[in-house]
Amino acid sequence: MKIYDISMKIHPKMAVYKNRDEKRPKFTIQSDFNTGSSYETRLDINLHTGTHIDAPLHMIKEGEFLDSYPLERFITLCKVFDFRGLSKISANDLQKKKIEVGDFILLKTDNSESEEFDFNFTFLEESGAKYLRDLGISGVGIDALGIERNQADHITHKTLLGEGIIILEGLRLGKVSEGNYYLIALPLKIEGVEAGPTRAVLIDEI
Amino acid sequence: MKIYDISMKIHPKMAVYKNRDEKRPKFTIQSDFNTGSSYETRLDINLHTGTHIDAPLHMIKEGEFLDSYPLERFITLCKVFDFRGLSKISANDLQKKKIEVGDFILLKTDNSESEEFDFNFTFLEESGAKYLRDLGISGVGIDALGIERNQADHITHKTLLGEGIIILEGLRLGKVSEGNYYLIALPLKIEGVEAGPTRAVLIDEI
Repeated sequence: MKIYDISMKIHPKMAVYKNRDEKRPKFTIQSDFNTGSSYETRLDINLHTGTHIDAPLHMIKEGEFLDSYPLERFITLCKVFDFRGLSKISANDLQKKKIEVGDFILLKTDNSESEEFDFNFTFLEESGAKYLRDLGISGVGIDALGIERNQADHITHKTLLGEGIIILEGLRLGKVSEGNYYLIALPLKIEGVEAGPTRAVLIDEI
Repeated sequence: MKIYDISMKIHPKMAVYKNRDEKRPKFTIQSDFNTGSSYETRLDINLHTGTHIDAPLHMIKEGEFLDSYPLERFITLCKVFDFRGLSKISANDLQKKKIEVGDFILLKTDNSESEEFDFNFTFLEESGAKYLRDLGISGVGIDALGIERNQADHITHKTLLGEGIIILEGLRLGKVSEGNYYLIALPLKIEGVEAGPTRAVLIDEI
């Protein structure tokens, strides 16, 4: 069994969306061996920092919570597609790949090559989101902290989340080649929220 | 594929260790549809709240961080043993079960029957920890927020963590019977810390 860790490291200086302070994780040591007999840390984190899954409520008023997704959807066959060299991914780009109903796909882009936040990150454009929705995929992941940027009304998010398509953001795909894998991307079991931090891995044989 | 979710739900009123306020998760809504165009939550959580993995640094000065464990150890065959009816689990109790070198074992106790924190929770006693260490197991999970209570010098933790044996705490095993499963218990990828919140599941066939 070969496991690829496709998650971001969570640490105080990690890249966060648009370098915004309110997205940075904060660590507090609650106890250490000077103050007590054990070491305990507290982590204060925006649910969209690092590798995470978005649920409909993130962009849709009264949308479903994270805990509405059955676990089976987070442990699944998946297809990684290589879209390096593009600044955005459109329906036209996706049509060149073999994507089928029910697929969980991951979009590998130039974003995986940098550890910094890139204001011009590659994203899934509106036409691409609509193409995937019409195909009836189960989920889509990308190696950026957002699946879109600078589009009116968060149209990519809403197109996908409106159909219950899972969005997995903040992946690191630099060491993964285009191909078929098993994906395990189980979010923390948080009740009544719009997203969940996730440790995501790919497995290339079981 | 049948998946058992063996994780605790994370929410403001969940059970926390000894009902301590500093262990409670805090949720802050950073944006909603009244204040912005998306819904975003921040979660402030002690790394030992809910289902989580302990690394050596939790109890051992200058012990290894969570990120020292290879991922292969978190995706593994595992054995669930039923110890309901006991107030603590000793070497004598463990000897009655078939536990072998390299095993990852989960201890099901009466703890799984309550959603409240029980100050008399069933735990793994010093003799049991030493027995498992001498057997050379890989990991041990329990359906309590601590693997021990009221023992001098955290001896159960130190016995296990001193040998790099993974401790998985805060499981919910009420719906799982004694037997063999696949365990997936991947902690968040947090750098330089002593523990990690984890979504843990069992699978009974692949």
